[in-house]
Amino acid sequence: MSDTMRERDARFERGMRVLESVDGEAGDRLIAALGDISPDIVHEVAAWAYGDVYARPGLVPRDRQLVTLGMLTALGDTTAELRVHIGAALNVGLTPDEVLEALLQSAVYCGFPRAINAILVAKEVFTERGLLLPRTAADTG
Amino acid sequence: MSDTMRERDARFERGMRVLESVDGEAGDRLIAALGDISPDIVHEVAAWAYGDVYARPGLVPRDRQLVTLGMLTALGDTTAELRVHIGAALNVGLTPDEVLEALLQSAVYCGFPRAINAILVAKEVFTERGLLLPRTAADTG
Amino acid sequence: MSDTMRERDARFERGMRVLESVDGEAGDRLIAALGDISPDIVHEVAAWAYGDVYARPGLVPRDRQLVTLGMLTALGDTTAELRVHIGAALNVGLTPDEVLEALLQSAVYCGFPRAINAILVAKEVFTERGLLLPRTAADTG
Amino acid sequence: MSDTMRERDARFERGMRVLESVDGEAGDRLIAALGDISPDIVHEVAAWAYGDVYARPGLVPRDRQLVTLGMLTALGDTTAELRVHIGAALNVGLTPDEVLEALLQSAVYCGFPRAINAILVAKEVFTERGLLLPRTAADTG
Amino acid sequence: MSDTMRERDARFERGMRVLESVDGEAGDRLIAALGDISPDIVHEVAAWAYGDVYARPGLVPRDRQLVTLGMLTALGDTTAELRVHIGAALNVGLTPDEVLEALLQSAVYCGFPRAINAILVAKEVFTERGLLLPRTAADTG
Amino acid sequence: MSDTMRERDARFERGMRVLESVDGEAGDRLIAALGDISPDIVHEVAAWAYGDVYARPGLVPRDRQLVTLGMLTALGDTTAELRVHIGAALNVGLTPDEVLEALLQSAVYCGFPRAINAILVAKEVFTERGLLLPRTAADTG
Repeated sequence: MSDTMRERDARFERGMRVLESVDGEAGDRLIAALGDISPDIVHEVAAWAYGDVYARPGLVPRDRQLVTLGMLTALGDTTAELRVHIGAALNVGLTPDEVLEALLQSAVYCGFPRAINAILVAKEVFTERGLLLPRTAADTG
Repeated sequence: MSDTMRERDARFERGMRVLESVDGEAGDRLIAALGDISPDIVHEVAAWAYGDVYARPGLVPRDRQLVTLGMLTALGDTTAELRVHIGAALNVGLTPDEVLEALLQSAVYCGFPRAINAILVAKEVFTERGLLLPRTAADTG
Repeated sequence: MSDTMRERDARFERGMRVLESVDGEAGDRLIAALGDISPDIVHEVAAWAYGDVYARPGLVPRDRQLVTLGMLTALGDTTAELRVHIGAALNVGLTPDEVLEALLQSAVYCGFPRAINAILVAKEVFTERGLLLPRTAADTG
Repeated sequence: MSDTMRERDARFERGMRVLESVDGEAGDRLIAALGDISPDIVHEVAAWAYGDVYARPGLVPRDRQLVTLGMLTALGDTTAELRVHIGAALNVGLTPDEVLEALLQSAVYCGFPRAINAILVAKEVFTERGLLLPRTAADTG
Repeated sequence: MSDTMRERDARFERGMRVLESVDGEAGDRLIAALGDISPDIVHEVAAWAYGDVYARPGLVPRDRQLVTLGMLTALGDTTAELRVHIGAALNVGLTPDEVLEALLQSAVYCGFPRAINAILVAKEVFTERGLLLPRTAADTG
Repeated sequence: MSDTMRERDARFERGMRVLESVDGEAGDRLIAALGDISPDIVHEVAAWAYGDVYARPGLVPRDRQLVTLGMLTALGDTTAELRVHIGAALNVGLTPDEVLEALLQSAVYCGFPRAINAILVAKEVFTERGLLLPRTAADTG
């Protein structure tokens, strides 16, 4: 194995460990979804996005997820990524109420359609994790 | 109850009445979809978006829906909102042909993918309301 | 001249007349800006966008401009087009207050950055036309 | 039948032939999806988008599909169009690997969410055509 | 003065105080830019965006700015807002390196053009504040 | 110097050579614009975007530029990048007419505002290179 291939593998392994530290199953799901069609994009997500960028020490994971929630909400057409990153946000220490607060604020900058889409994804993620507390109709006013 | 809470409730109630004047069931659907996860965004949609902005006298509802159809079509990833606002457009006096004409024009400014997405939502709404007239293949030429 | 070329010219001429009915100088400005680099896009704007689509009888010009203001505001990066269409909106019968009301409403669906950008273009257009009335600071509250 | 109607029909027929040369069934699917709700948008897709623009000799179909894959990936919310144009790209001579390479590159300019969405559509199209080759997990590193 | 007007003024005053706590001059600049053309959007930015949403206790200002930087970078065509919010981010406790780290990460989700645009705005803001440290060419490798 | 730093430098150098093969001065301009504020984004553009992705053998540079022109036109707010990539497109073998043809086609998928913005950037680039041929007004019809 050449040095370049060894380095390539090392970057991939490092990135997969970062990805798994954020979300234990995300690495497996990434390979399941994309490994057969584009091993190269799997490699770049792991090696570059997580290994080179996300792993940088300049911003803690909780802060990175806040920025990412903002970007994904603003972009639109990002349901799958929002699901991953709302889960990741909870994993790295944001509370459900902080996630909702971030998404409510997005209405100011991106408008209500984007904010509502993202909150509906949060509803799915919170429900799966048993985090959706019953609230009385009176809370709505 | 404090003055501020009373005022908050009054703004919500006023907004819900505006929302229901546009679409009789929209208030209930909004609470059903979002009331358990984010009563706050339900509040802001009703109190602010409908009560403070939509209810302003400077533009009649029919005109507001034309602007909104343009925005939702351009934004993309707004199927649910397009369904609401194509329905609302019909409720406040736009004809089905005027809605289609607005969406056809959107191809000029946003391109065909956005225009076609929006027209497919119109097809659903018109079909539900029994407004989709049969046309012969000859009409297509 | 072949029939096809004659038809092509006829479509262009018809479109330019529509464009000029909306904005007396828009045809000249279009040719000045793009005629040397891409006569073909000039042709398509005139012949197709105005001659084939805008000229359709299904929606009056005032309604078309409302939809267009919504789209251009939502798209972003459309300063030049907003300038043309805010002017056109005034030309076909929308009042300055109706234009501002449409742009204020866009904050609900696209967020404040897009709405503010569009209102700043309206400020330029209204100022050029002497339509910007002085308002006292007290109006701001 | 007037000259104008005859010309309109001729433009439609010419466009449908172009569309069918790119994708044998696309014309039928277009009419099936949109012919009953908006014969006019069917007409414009065929007559204008394919007959007037796509059929121009200045760029070969293979090149047009590369540009189009870039646009659709960047726009987002274009799953149906990506399906058509990934198929069309294969029909006019791009290899599956070239399509994937174009979509991988899109991560650089549009970010990974858009690139991944497009690659998942490619996975569907390639699978339908029996083009998805099995790769071993080792390829992923 | 009616109760409703008194309440409206109180919401505006509260929002302006929040806005000024984030950026001492932002309130004045907002009125200078928009007060003559649309006192209503000035009101909504202050009363709603800052008074009702930003002032909510559920997320600290530093976190709100991280989300907002993500949204503005993703949206594009937001130079003026990025200038305000990069400044605000520094005001509420983010370091210049954290801001840059957030913007670097945006390349992963929105692509390099959006990330580079935002970093160029950061360069302006940091330069104005004397925060742009000289770095040697060797740092670039 | 550690192996990792040596590898990092090697990836940067390789990327800068690719970037310079596309556009002789682009590397210098990149460092001039961003080297003082964010050496890290300079590194990632060179090492990752050009060295890892663009340099891949699966798609020739001419094809990569077609995809990129499509993406940048669709994204909007990409004037600086369009300037670079329209220049790069010419450098790697696209003719001015092919570039214009690609941008004209973008009107179909992204609408005219995006297409016109991109064509105006092409006008600047072609003018700088002495490629803008005089055309008579008669060409416009």
